[in-house]
Amino acid sequence: MSKVSWKGSALLAPVPPALVSCGTLEQPNILTVAWTGIVCTHPPMTYISVRPERFSYRIIAESGEFVINLPTASMAKTVDFCGMKTGAKLNKAQHCHLELLPGEQVAAPIIASCPVSLECRVTEQKALGTHTMFLAEIVGVQVEERLLDSKGKLDLRQAGLLAYAHGEYFALGRKCGDFGYSVRRKKK
Amino acid sequence: MSKVSWKGSALLAPVPPALVSCGTLEQPNILTVAWTGIVCTHPPMTYISVRPERFSYRIIAESGEFVINLPTASMAKTVDFCGMKTGAKLNKAQHCHLELLPGEQVAAPIIASCPVSLECRVTEQKALGTHTMFLAEIVGVQVEERLLDSKGKLDLRQAGLLAYAHGEYFALGRKCGDFGYSVRRKKK
Repeated sequence: MSKVSWKGSALLAPVPPALVSCGTLEQPNILTVAWTGIVCTHPPMTYISVRPERFSYRIIAESGEFVINLPTASMAKTVDFCGMKTGAKLNKAQHCHLELLPGEQVAAPIIASCPVSLECRVTEQKALGTHTMFLAEIVGVQVEERLLDSKGKLDLRQAGLLAYAHGEYFALGRKCGDFGYSVRRKKK
Repeated sequence: MSKVSWKGSALLAPVPPALVSCGTLEQPNILTVAWTGIVCTHPPMTYISVRPERFSYRIIAESGEFVINLPTASMAKTVDFCGMKTGAKLNKAQHCHLELLPGEQVAAPIIASCPVSLECRVTEQKALGTHTMFLAEIVGVQVEERLLDSKGKLDLRQAGLLAYAHGEYFALGRKCGDFGYSVRRKKK
């Protein structure tokens, strides 16, 4: 396999193209953020990296709160749109017919049609260059009830989440295995 | 859509189940890390979050270098295995028949069968709880040549990357759109 060497670039994939909600139920804004991830399991911590020139930047910096909503593949167009348009000129939630519900732990609203919403409280802000990273604790999670099985276990596969890879949106495809399957002994 | 509220947890998906290589070509180690993401576009920066008790933790802390290798769906079993076994007892690269190649910018090797490798140099280390976050600059990228089209543009879709979501591995499925498609005018 022949390789070519390039200079450093942000070529990590697939990443979650999250719909981030901020502000309040009365004055909400939505933005799309692919620069997010988990940074710690306990306490549960995440981050979003946002350009300071984006409309939501000041809202998040001042309120210290945001919600990461995981979109489904059927929401791809909305996800893309919310990354293209600014909340300075448009109420994106209204325009995209996104129903908003109150957060449980934060003033920022959650997006009803997203199967999972992570309510986040900022712990630190780091200016890195084009983007500022908001490190945050995940203080609550809201999950769509229909995704829970009879034992209350989340079947996230049913959600049909959206992925983003190098400028393209994808649905998740065939399952290749589950955590630990490579070392699990087969039951007789 | 009825929601249930849970306490905070690390429920972000899909994320990249990266094969991280560290050490040297002569004394390499491989570990699987799903807690990774892009934190800045320019300069290109990423992170990995690693438990301090993992064998690779000290190698990365001391060398200040690692490589994020993006695996294909066909590598799911290897990805899972490298997250389950410790390098303290096993040469995982050898066991999994992973061919290693020299990095261009770092002493850590790259994994030949991964279509994209991000060579990273640590800029900061943050202890957050169960995990320590290594913030890093992406100082070089190695890409499989067969993924470049006649104009030298990367067609990452051909790579067939692997995704991870809530304990399950998935191939990427159908394409739902590309960046900007929601606002693009159709050509006549």
